[in-house]
Order: sequence, then structure tokens, then C-alpha cells
Amino acid sequence: MAVQTTGTSQPTAPTDSTAGVSLGPAVALSCRECGERLPLGPVFACAECFGPLEIAYELPGGDPEALRARIAAGPNSIWRYAPLLPVPADVTDRPGTNPGFTQLVKADNLARELGVTGSLHIKDDSGNPTHSFKDRVVAIAVEAAHAFGFTTLSCSSTGNLAGAVGAAAARAGFRSCVFIPHDLEQGKVVMAAVYGGELVGIEGNYDEVNRFCSELIGDPLGEGWGFVNVNLRPYYAEGSKTLAYEICEQLGWRLPDQLVVPIASGSQLTKIDKGLKELIAVGLVEDRPYRIFGAQAAGCSPVSRAYKEGHEVVRPVKPDTIAKSLAIGNPADGPYVLDIARRTGGSVEDVTDAQIVDAIKQLARTEGIFAETAGGVTVGVTRKLLESGELDPSLSTVVLNTGDGLKTLDAVAPTTGPTATIRPSLDAFRAAGLAS
Amino acid sequence: MAVQTTGTSQPTAPTDSTAGVSLGPAVALSCRECGERLPLGPVFACAECFGPLEIAYELPGGDPEALRARIAAGPNSIWRYAPLLPVPADVTDRPGTNPGFTQLVKADNLARELGVTGSLHIKDDSGNPTHSFKDRVVAIAVEAAHAFGFTTLSCSSTGNLAGAVGAAAARAGFRSCVFIPHDLEQGKVVMAAVYGGELVGIEGNYDEVNRFCSELIGDPLGEGWGFVNVNLRPYYAEGSKTLAYEICEQLGWRLPDQLVVPIASGSQLTKIDKGLKELIAVGLVEDRPYRIFGAQAAGCSPVSRAYKEGHEVVRPVKPDTIAKSLAIGNPADGPYVLDIARRTGGSVEDVTDAQIVDAIKQLARTEGIFAETAGGVTVGVTRKLLESGELDPSLSTVVLNTGDGLKTLDAVAPTTGPTATIRPSLDAFRAAGLAS
Ligand SMILES: [Zn+2]
Ligand SMILES: [Zn+2]
Repeated sequence: MAVQTTGTSQPTAPTDSTAGVSLGPAVALSCRECGERLPLGPVFACAECFGPLEIAYELPGGDPEALRARIAAGPNSIWRYAPLLPVPADVTDRPGTNPGFTQLVKADNLARELGVTGSLHIKDDSGNPTHSFKDRVVAIAVEAAHAFGFTTLSCSSTGNLAGAVGAAAARAGFRSCVFIPHDLEQGKVVMAAVYGGELVGIEGNYDEVNRFCSELIGDPLGEGWGFVNVNLRPYYAEGSKTLAYEICEQLGWRLPDQLVVPIASGSQLTKIDKGLKELIAVGLVEDRPYRIFGAQAAGCSPVSRAYKEGHEVVRPVKPDTIAKSLAIGNPADGPYVLDIARRTGGSVEDVTDAQIVDAIKQLARTEGIFAETAGGVTVGVTRKLLESGELDPSLSTVVLNTGDGLKTLDAVAPTTGPTATIRPSLDAFRAAGLAS
Repeated sequence: MAVQTTGTSQPTAPTDSTAGVSLGPAVALSCRECGERLPLGPVFACAECFGPLEIAYELPGGDPEALRARIAAGPNSIWRYAPLLPVPADVTDRPGTNPGFTQLVKADNLARELGVTGSLHIKDDSGNPTHSFKDRVVAIAVEAAHAFGFTTLSCSSTGNLAGAVGAAAARAGFRSCVFIPHDLEQGKVVMAAVYGGELVGIEGNYDEVNRFCSELIGDPLGEGWGFVNVNLRPYYAEGSKTLAYEICEQLGWRLPDQLVVPIASGSQLTKIDKGLKELIAVGLVEDRPYRIFGAQAAGCSPVSRAYKEGHEVVRPVKPDTIAKSLAIGNPADGPYVLDIARRTGGSVEDVTDAQIVDAIKQLARTEGIFAETAGGVTVGVTRKLLESGELDPSLSTVVLNTGDGLKTLDAVAPTTGPTATIRPSLDAFRAAGLAS
């Protein structure tokens, strides 16, 4: 079913039908800057002020216990939270990757090393179908694409998103066409290509790939195409709310005191805050303060810098860090992140590439979780914030790991290897001093 | 608590206590060949006949509905089946990787391509903490190691097992020491080393690594060491039963008609059969026929060959296949596999490396699941058995994917890449003919 949204010059759905779409509790798009409301459709910027659009809901009222029971009886995936998401009621009837409900790991070993006396949990999103949190946001975008009648799923990507889009499109029966810089490492190309959709190498860097996608989306050639992080972005972004929902449910429907969240575009942090506020609004958790801390790599730390310098806007930077999945030099949600960190009593911090590698290894060694570089960023920042006293070690803290170490092996490879190499003999083993 | 088992010359637990251990419903070790029973302990071969030992249980009797409810109220991991596993009742009180309860994917797209008119499911064990089914078996071994007072977890490995042991030891607070051939590819070394345990490269091939481990286990140097797949093997092996439990629960407590299971040592297939029989015995599923099919790579197909030639024993082979995780040339459980395939009306089949690659791509393209080479083996064999008529397309079929494609990228890399590489312009895109 396609919707023509009025008042914007953006390309819309493949047909001109004005029939309504049914996306559960989602009732409209709302401009985050001026408050202008638009009907649900594949648009991403306000027609009045060009501000970003987000989903407005009529959330379920009534007895929180009934809602808790409904969620508990739902599937072991993000779809258990369908009453709070922009998805149709029959979402579980269609094939999909069904991401989410990943482990919230009680990280007692890491807590001991870091001197945390309260509780420390790692939300480990490497357990998702393609091993990153991108499966969550793409799954919501797929539902919007379905509602708006798109037949091709697309994105530009240098990594996690390509895999998530390829896998979701395959499962859900969409065509996919993913755009990547032509000179990506072979491993990443394989991960993007293996799901069998179209994979187009663009002769240019990632910025040029993005510019090309923007051109395509404004051209008749792109009709019928849902770019998950462009014209489906308002829906896509809501997927990150499910991290907030899961964390609270897994803590026994309680808010954590402190959360440490990575910042790429800043959308994830912003939506986690939105999700927490929604849980309070519908009465699923008690209304008490929580602090959100943003984590960046020093080599791409525009939000951290703006936070420390007391700015309300973010000056773009040219990324240079091993944390490729966070390397967005001009983060669209930067100002919102600054606002949330300040409002909640959190902060924004960054760590060097060496600290990222060290944190990846510390998390693996203490908790058996092999994180992507983005996980090294959040763990490293957690450590730094504990040392500076900004994180309170006596409170409950949740740290996000949004990806999988198998995808960023290069980060740790130079410094990770055998403790010893020996001949196959007991004498050699004895000489190596490894017997317990 | 350590147990001295009598009547064997094998090394046992670090102390000589004869106090009993408490491993839930497990009551003894039992010889699969002569039926001799031994008390629970870290032994793996019968003192009478040198046959393999397995766990004997006193399984929960009474109302199956009560047991179903108890399982349903349990955690989303293999520990929901604790009443059927050799683990203490307090297993969830200790930190562990909590593997299992992975997705059973309804593979309608693949079913259509393969002409399956019944139902086709993929049990996708790439969702486990270190992305292979090995997390299941290691988790059970960890509980046995704990019960027997071991302080070091060990294994020989060339891949999945190393990661599973390293991660589990880190989380559960064991020292680990993993032995690998010294000339493994760097990626695999990183995966084995990142969890921070001891990693010892052995100057020799995998057989020599294994021989060295056997020496070590018989030497005082190895005292206090739990080799998950040697002296803890009877416990370790039981972890594969959880695949059977999950499949049946996820099908609504029903047996599938047909299962396609990979064969490495053959242990997994054997234990899946054991798990299914247990579910029937305790009344959790209706007693009706099921067929188990074994899947091998043509480059390491000793069981398939024995099956086709009508033998009851398996002649060892020298493996030569891309399916490294299945490359065991002398599979210990081969004769049991032959028996199960024949008894249940299944069979054993093998596929070439080219067919494995093709099947990996087919599964990724149709269902968005990127499988390890072992998953290519099971999907490829499924296809072959459908073509030969041995698998009935009108029945319900479950196919196992036991690992993750990210760990065997090399298998598909040479034939997986971009559909096109173009300049960043709409004209170039139009010329490439990719618009929908
Ligand atoms: Zn506006
Ligand atoms: Zn015996």
C-alpha cells in the first residue's frame, strides 16, 4: 500500500495511492525541530524546516501488568515489543530475520577489574542474525518497505549494514541492491555479496557512495527503492528503541542507572533515550533518573569534542580510527546526543585506537565476549569514565556491544597470538612453564 | 568435589576424594558396548572393554505437562532443559556463556527452490555466543569440570572448539590452555587467542596435536586439567542432545519427520537420536517414527562410504575438503551413526566441495543465513537426498547449520563479489542495467 505524502519534494512510494498504512501504534511522522506532523510515508525531512522526522505514536494505555504479560508471551525477538513499534500487528506472520532479545550478560569479572561495586552488564548484540545491532533497525525498515509497497531494499554501507540488508531482503523476499566503495577489503565484500542481492562497487570513497545514493533516490531510476537509512530512516531508526526495551525487561523491568552507548550518527543513543522515556510513559518501569553516556573513538570524536567544549552543535571531522562502524565525521543526531547527555547527567567521552584494542581484549579475557571495535569503544570509555569519576561505580551500569569481533579481526590480530610454540613433547611443554 | 573412579587406569580428578558429585539427573557412566556402569567421574572409556562411556540418567517421571511448563518457564538457553542434562540444579547461578535456544528458521524460500512441499526448517546454531554448536557441548563440559574440581579447561582444536573453550573458560573463571597446530591461518589463531587463555602452537599437524594431548592427560603435568573432548567427553557429548530438545520444542513439542545432521566424529548425530528418544520416554513428544540422515563432505566421507557399501564399521580416510570442521577421518561414533541411519530409515550421503559452496550460497540467497562450510554440507546433502528420493519432500524436515560463514569466508570468497563496479553517476548506473 503506497502513500503519497504531501508538502515535500522528496520522492515517495512507487504508486500514488493515498490510502493509509497500518503500522501498529505509529500514527504520524513528526518533525523533531518544528513539531510539524505528516502522515506516515517514506519521507525523512520536514517540509517546513527540513528538520529530521520521527515517528509519533499512540502508545498502549491501561494496565502495565497486562502489557508486561503480553510482551512476556511474545516471541524471543524484537517483535515481542510490537505494541511499541511502527510495525503492523501481523508482523510475525511474514518471514523475517527476527533479531533481538540478545543476551544481557552480567559482567562480574569485568566489574571486578574495573572496580565496579554496583552491577555491570554488557548488552551483547553480536548475537543477532548477522551479528550486529543493524539487524534490529533493518527489520523495522523492512516492515515500512512492505507497507509502502517498495520492492527493492537498498543502502550504502562499508560493513554491518550491508550484511543486515542483504540477509533481511533474502529472508523477506525483497530484491536488494547495496552500494559500497569499490576498494573495500575482500572479506567485507564477501559478507555483503553472499546473500545474493545486487552489490554495486562505486568508484569513489564512502562520501561519494552516499552522494550517489542521494542522487538515485531523487531520480525515477530509484522509484520503488527503499533506502533503509534514507527514505525509510524514521522507521529504521526506531529499531534502536528495542535495545532500551530489552535492557529494562532483562533487568526485571527496571531502568539501569547508567548506560554507555556508542555514537556513530548518534541515532542509536537518541532512540535508546526515547525508548526509556516510552517505558516510563506506559508504566512498564518506575520513573527514576538514568544517565546516558556517549562513546566515540578519538579518531572520530566530533560529539565528544563538542561536549567537552560546551557547544550545542557539532563540527564535522575527517574520521581516522580503527572503529570503522562508528566513523561518521558529521553525525546527524550529534546535537540531540549532546542534549541527552547533559539533560540526564551523563557525558560524552572518547578513547584512542590503542585503548579500543586493549578494551576488546579485556572484555574477551574477562567475559568471553569478542566484540567489534565499537564494543572496544564503549568498554574503553566505561573504563575511562570510571577513572575520571563520571561513572558512579556503586550504581547499575549497562554497556552496549553492538557488533562482532569476527568482523574486525584486523584490530586485534597484530597483538594476539599463541603464548608459546613447542614441539609435541612433554619435555617441551614442561620447559614452556605452562603446567598449572 | 573430586571423584576417584575405580577400575580404570585413566587419570582422574585432581584430588582423591570419593565423595559423590551432583549432576542433576545423571546417575552413572555406562559403557555403550558392554553396559558396564561406573560412578560419575572424569573417565571416557570402559575399564572392561575400552568401549565409550555415556551418561545414564534417572529422568523425571510424572506429568509431561508439568515438565513442559517447567521448561517453558526456564531461561532462553540450553539450561531450560537442565532436568534432562548432566548438570547440577544450581547451574544458572554461576556465570556461563548460556548458549542455545537458537532460531529454528522456517525456510519457505529454500523449500520452494528444493521442491519441498511439507515443511523445511533450518536449525541455525550460528546464533550461539561464539557462533557454533560447540558452545553447547563446552557449556556442559564446564559444569562437569566444576563438579570434578578441575581448574584448567583444555582441548585440541583447529577452529570452533578453541573459541568455545576460550570464551566459556573466561566467563566461568577457569584457566584455559588450548592446543593448535602451529601453522593455522592467522584469523583462526586470533579467534583462539583473543579470550586470553594460554594458546599453544604445536609443531606438527592436528593428529600430532591430539597425540600430544593424550600424552599430557596421562602425565602428572596434566593433573587438574579438564580436556573437554577427552576426559570430559561423556558430559561434553551430551550437549548435542539440546539440539534435539530445542527442535522439538520449537516445533510445538513435536518430532520432525526427517533430520539432516552433519557428521564429524558422529557424536552429534548420535546424541540427537538419544535426545529424541528421551523426549519420547518422558512423554514430551508423541512416539512416532523419525528418520535421521547423516551428511559428510565427499573429501572426508568414511561414514557415507561405509553406509553405501553396507558395512558396519568405518574405514578411516585422510581428509581433503573445505569443510574443515567436519574433517575427521576416523570418526569415533561412525558405527553408531550407521546403526541409527539404518534403524530410523535414514541414510548417509556426501557432497563435493563445489556442491558445498553452492549450497552455502543457496542458503544465504534464499534465507539470509550465512553458514559455515558444515552448513553447506547439510544443505547440499538435503538437496541431493531430495533429488534421489531418499528424503520425502512432503514431510517435515529439519536441517542443521552448526556454524558461521564468517569463520570460513575463504570457501565462498573466490566466487562471491560485486555484480558491477561503476562510476558514481546515474548514467553509469543506468548503463549497468540494475534499476528495477
Ligand atoms: Zn520541521
Ligand atoms: Zn564396556
